[in-house]
Amino acid sequence: MDKLHHIAITVPDISKALAWYCDEFDADFTYADESWALLQFDNIALALVLPGQHPPHIAVERSNAADYGALTPHRDGTASVYVEDPWGNTIEFLQTGQKPA
Amino acid sequence: MDKLHHIAITVPDISKALAWYCDEFDADFTYADESWALLQFDNIALALVLPGQHPPHIAVERSNAADYGALTPHRDGTASVYVEDPWGNTIEFLQTGQKPA
Repeated sequence: MDKLHHIAITVPDISKALAWYCDEFDADFTYADESWALLQFDNIALALVLPGQHPPHIAVERSNAADYGALTPHRDGTASVYVEDPWGNTIEFLQTGQKPA
Repeated sequence: MDKLHHIAITVPDISKALAWYCDEFDADFTYADESWALLQFDNIALALVLPGQHPPHIAVERSNAADYGALTPHRDGTASVYVEDPWGNTIEFLQTGQKPA
């Protein structure tokens, strides 16, 4: 069964939003810079992203992510590609593991 | 640590979107009617909702959901209330279990 890696919602200020979400929820701070932050919940991560930098999206883990387009490698060893459903919702197909294609 | 129960994204037609998502993903069909549908992924459920009926949102399981407002009971025994973060993102505080307040 497919697993969702994270969901991303847009906020206008990462540090202010991170402070609010860390205060409101029992979740582990994972990463933050000026353009996005990641909070790990029990079963999934929540990403806070800036509008214009990343669309709000859901990310699904897929070993065949490359089938959906050219993968962009990330610093943590994952690689992914953004696609849209027929109605404009953004889905990130994310390949985890050591060897992004 | 807090657990996210589901995330909800908006689509213009539930049955068409359900067909697309069921075809695209390895997830279990849980429920559908004219206004929303639920697909269970490995770690979280994905809700497809109509704009105007439900906002796109994330739902967090909370035994103290009632602290956030008057709970609306649902057919499955859960009860919840929608709130917004300071930037307009909708969060559903969802109380699971047998006795919604």
